[in-house]
Amino acid sequence: MDRDERYMSMAIQMAEETVGQTSPNPSVAAIVVKDNQVVGVGVHVRAGEPHAEVHALTMAGSKAEGAEIYVTLEPCSHYGKTPPCAEAVIKAGIRRVVVASHDPNPKVAGRGIQMMKDKGLEVRTGVWKEAADELNRSFFHFIQTGEPYVRLKSAMSLDGKIATASGESQWITGEESRRDGHFYRHKSDAILVGVNTVLADNPALTTRIEGNGSHPIRIVMDTHLRTPLSSQLILNDQAPTWIFVGSQVPDAHLQSFQEHPHVRVIPLVGERVSVEEVLRYLGEHKVTSLLVEGGATIADAFVRLDKVDETITYMAPKLIGGKEALTPVAGKGIQQLKNVQSFQIVSTEILGEDLKIVSVKKENGDVYRDS
Amino acid sequence: MDRDERYMSMAIQMAEETVGQTSPNPSVAAIVVKDNQVVGVGVHVRAGEPHAEVHALTMAGSKAEGAEIYVTLEPCSHYGKTPPCAEAVIKAGIRRVVVASHDPNPKVAGRGIQMMKDKGLEVRTGVWKEAADELNRSFFHFIQTGEPYVRLKSAMSLDGKIATASGESQWITGEESRRDGHFYRHKSDAILVGVNTVLADNPALTTRIEGNGSHPIRIVMDTHLRTPLSSQLILNDQAPTWIFVGSQVPDAHLQSFQEHPHVRVIPLVGERVSVEEVLRYLGEHKVTSLLVEGGATIADAFVRLDKVDETITYMAPKLIGGKEALTPVAGKGIQQLKNVQSFQIVSTEILGEDLKIVSVKKENGDVYRDS
Repeated sequence: MDRDERYMSMAIQMAEETVGQTSPNPSVAAIVVKDNQVVGVGVHVRAGEPHAEVHALTMAGSKAEGAEIYVTLEPCSHYGKTPPCAEAVIKAGIRRVVVASHDPNPKVAGRGIQMMKDKGLEVRTGVWKEAADELNRSFFHFIQTGEPYVRLKSAMSLDGKIATASGESQWITGEESRRDGHFYRHKSDAILVGVNTVLADNPALTTRIEGNGSHPIRIVMDTHLRTPLSSQLILNDQAPTWIFVGSQVPDAHLQSFQEHPHVRVIPLVGERVSVEEVLRYLGEHKVTSLLVEGGATIADAFVRLDKVDETITYMAPKLIGGKEALTPVAGKGIQQLKNVQSFQIVSTEILGEDLKIVSVKKENGDVYRDS
Repeated sequence: MDRDERYMSMAIQMAEETVGQTSPNPSVAAIVVKDNQVVGVGVHVRAGEPHAEVHALTMAGSKAEGAEIYVTLEPCSHYGKTPPCAEAVIKAGIRRVVVASHDPNPKVAGRGIQMMKDKGLEVRTGVWKEAADELNRSFFHFIQTGEPYVRLKSAMSLDGKIATASGESQWITGEESRRDGHFYRHKSDAILVGVNTVLADNPALTTRIEGNGSHPIRIVMDTHLRTPLSSQLILNDQAPTWIFVGSQVPDAHLQSFQEHPHVRVIPLVGERVSVEEVLRYLGEHKVTSLLVEGGATIADAFVRLDKVDETITYMAPKLIGGKEALTPVAGKGIQQLKNVQSFQIVSTEILGEDLKIVSVKKENGDVYRDS
């Protein structure tokens, strides 16, 4: 690791700690270095607050004059809730800038860098680019597609079963796996289930992790609005609940949900709730990441439309068997292998007795690709 | 690693190279060390030939006098095809003996060690025991149960499918996985499929690996003797084919298979071919390890009787979906989670795009257990 890589690696680690708290903004960290001494550090804490560079420059104060700055993402070039960071970097008298990822928005990518170069600053880009891109994979996807980044979470046996043939499913995987799963709720803007999961399990879909977590918006795909008013998603108001319904649900039925301020019932144009409409709505409402947790037919709808960007699979080393036992992705399925989307395994980890496997969609998932 | 561990580790690596060629004997290696110099090495090459200790002592010659010997398995204490190795070690004048695993046969375990201790030799046991036990896992199982060690091999998608809902299955996993799979044929005394696999795929079930491999005995579970006389298992005589049939198959039909010397049709007592009867027969005929390769209903029969000792799973990072898509273990399945046997994951490895997962049955699979 050269010197630039060392500082950038530190910055990426700092940014990683803020994953899940900055939506709809990316996770970013910055370090100001003068004469090989760290004189300023900053992270973007949450949307609406100053960017990482501003915090780091503020901390550095007059020491920023003639210093270097390491930033995990290209400093922005536009006026938003805050002035452009590229301008702040220039004003502070920074001499050299090291950047990991470019701005994911193709319309503005490179502009911040150009602004700084134009003022005579030395700029190096692409240091630990892969790791920095990985950090904001979901944000980049959201910016580029206008839809949330979709993670599909499954817990299954070694032979691909999420329940026995008689329907028993609690618990196939162990406590460590289930605890780890809650972390993805914390990291996601929203969590989605089908109404059958609501009817079968009556889940709260909140985040239970040590030291409190942020709760995702709870999304139900529910064509006929069968979610019971007595369900936890309605009675528990720890997080918003958005229920997507088809166009045929009677008004009176819709109105019965109005007394709960955290509940929003959203009638779609189509008779049946479609994955495409839901994703478009979520994107428009700044939901950058979505965790799909159940059930198998819902998962299949996402798979057949090629809308799964990442899979998180907890696999218990057990053989359950059974032609009738449910698998994580059921429904109609894809008929021909040539139409099946390939993923790339990016990590495997033993959790207790189980194996956790994370994979990302291949087209945007080649983490070693250079640009 | 202390000195003993270093030499034993080398011996275990040597023994590992002979896995699959010594059946029904275990894989064993020995090293003779005098004044920190290796003066003899030996492995057991194949059943009927000298044991590893004898080869190593022969090579050491008179240098064995006052030397140490490292053996991966307790030297035998009985007269079989060769005289007891414990006696050979004593006669050679060895001063100190280091052993990894005890003899797996409870009736004679410790006897070889006792013979040597009685003659004043210093004996240390248990050095790299776990690794040495692992090496001969299938042999130990065979000695202790009288039945072959059963490996279940599967190739599936990330969502547990071995084919699409329309039945397409070639190929879900990649070339590296398929090549690796052939190595298990080389390592196994026999390979087993159901007759439906024979009818659907007409497989040769021979070993195709670089530098030639040994072919396993090909076993078919075929209650009604539906294996066609024109199938590869009958026409290809590279390895024996044993077809287990039920008690109701007419004699004339049995006789039509007699002209092929490599084919043996074995009528069982029961009307239907049962896994128990097959395993008992194989154990009696010195088949120490069995690879179960297909199909899903056969796998289920082994799973429900708790006869799977090890799983080898090749998982392609693909989502196929489909309630009707076949999974690696189908059939009736196990109904209650409390009746499901737990396995322990012992290795994971990326092969091309795929993930290979190996797990062993928990009761005899706790590789870190000490005795």
